[in-house]
Amino acid sequence: MKEAQLHSREKILFFNKEYIAEFVYGGIDGAITTFAVVAGAEGASLGISVVIILGIANLIADGFSMSVGNFFSTKAERDSFEKHRQVEYWEIENLREREVEEIREIYAAKGFKGELLEQVVDVITADKEVWVDTMMKEELEMVKGDKTPYKTAGATFISFILVGSVPLLSYFFAGEDLSVKDPQLFLYSCILTGVALAIVGSLKSIVNEKNIIWGILETTLLGGLAAFLAYFVGDLLENLFL
Amino acid sequence: MKEAQLHSREKILFFNKEYIAEFVYGGIDGAITTFAVVAGAEGASLGISVVIILGIANLIADGFSMSVGNFFSTKAERDSFEKHRQVEYWEIENLREREVEEIREIYAAKGFKGELLEQVVDVITADKEVWVDTMMKEELEMVKGDKTPYKTAGATFISFILVGSVPLLSYFFAGEDLSVKDPQLFLYSCILTGVALAIVGSLKSIVNEKNIIWGILETTLLGGLAAFLAYFVGDLLENLFL
Repeated sequence: MKEAQLHSREKILFFNKEYIAEFVYGGIDGAITTFAVVAGAEGASLGISVVIILGIANLIADGFSMSVGNFFSTKAERDSFEKHRQVEYWEIENLREREVEEIREIYAAKGFKGELLEQVVDVITADKEVWVDTMMKEELEMVKGDKTPYKTAGATFISFILVGSVPLLSYFFAGEDLSVKDPQLFLYSCILTGVALAIVGSLKSIVNEKNIIWGILETTLLGGLAAFLAYFVGDLLENLFL
Repeated sequence: MKEAQLHSREKILFFNKEYIAEFVYGGIDGAITTFAVVAGAEGASLGISVVIILGIANLIADGFSMSVGNFFSTKAERDSFEKHRQVEYWEIENLREREVEEIREIYAAKGFKGELLEQVVDVITADKEVWVDTMMKEELEMVKGDKTPYKTAGATFISFILVGSVPLLSYFFAGEDLSVKDPQLFLYSCILTGVALAIVGSLKSIVNEKNIIWGILETTLLGGLAAFLAYFVGDLLENLFL
């Protein structure tokens, strides 16, 4: 009983972790993408209004496409698993001898031989569920994921929009004239985005079971470097095109 | 021998498919993200120079962050698998009785009982590799992925930049005055991006083993809707802020 409880608790943790993972990756992507738009526009010395307009447009469009894309890829993974399972069911019906031989090979590789091997093959192939399950895990090395398409897509969208709006926050407190530049706003945006990435990065280290300092460093450095690249490219192209 | 050849051929196909998948998802993300910047800027009636500057800045920054993010997540997956394997090795050394009982439960659930079950448990637990392998697949439902961090990140980066530059192509053939608007350029960008997304979408249907028409429709509609959202938001905010 204790064992069973332990297992189910491990399962629940594992299950929720999947969604924390979606939340973490959605949030990181949202913040980095929006921050890159902000930094690129700042590098090219474009006005506050351009930062706000393209920042929001990008946030919504990317949040949408990323979460819908996530929906389709989670669904595709599930469908692929289901399809391969159906193929295995078909094969044990129609290519029975070949599939029995494959079970024999799989268990021979585990160290079974002689009479015991034949008995094991008999038990495994006596139950179609067990037989197909064995083929999926041992031959195809496929396991069914816990993720459901709607929930993963939802978690991704919410975190993308929530964390992704952080780099824009300071710009909403700009003065009346939105055509000017205000270096203070970009500075605040950098600080706020850094803090947001650090928080999400620390959550990521929980998901990955890694050192928390490493999670924070990895995430903030990645966002910082991407923003630096955008700023640098914006600055360079400003001199060429503006 | 024939079986073994068949298996290794299946493995190679499976292996390469992983990279085609990275290429497909990187390309779709690149095209949709860049197209959203273009559409948002067009919706807000910003000049050609803004489209080019922010399009390129975003392409490079997002391509970088996406592929490095991909590197870390692939690595984290591998590390997580390795860590759980080490835990299982530790457990069979230090909690031997509990782990033997878990193998017994796993094989009882497959339909083994009595003397045969005990013999099976003996064979599985006689080889630590087989024992841990069984715990990984049956208890934790974890399989080792084929993806290597560097290669997945590389495939993602290349396709993100390649396919992601398509929405910008027409703008490089703009006239001298880059501060103006030219609806023709946006029209060409829409057409070219549609074609690129259709090609990548058809590749995606190969990866997912789905109907090719569905793959094309899914991908182009997703990109089209994201761009529509960006255009719409850009247009709306232009009236508010510009």
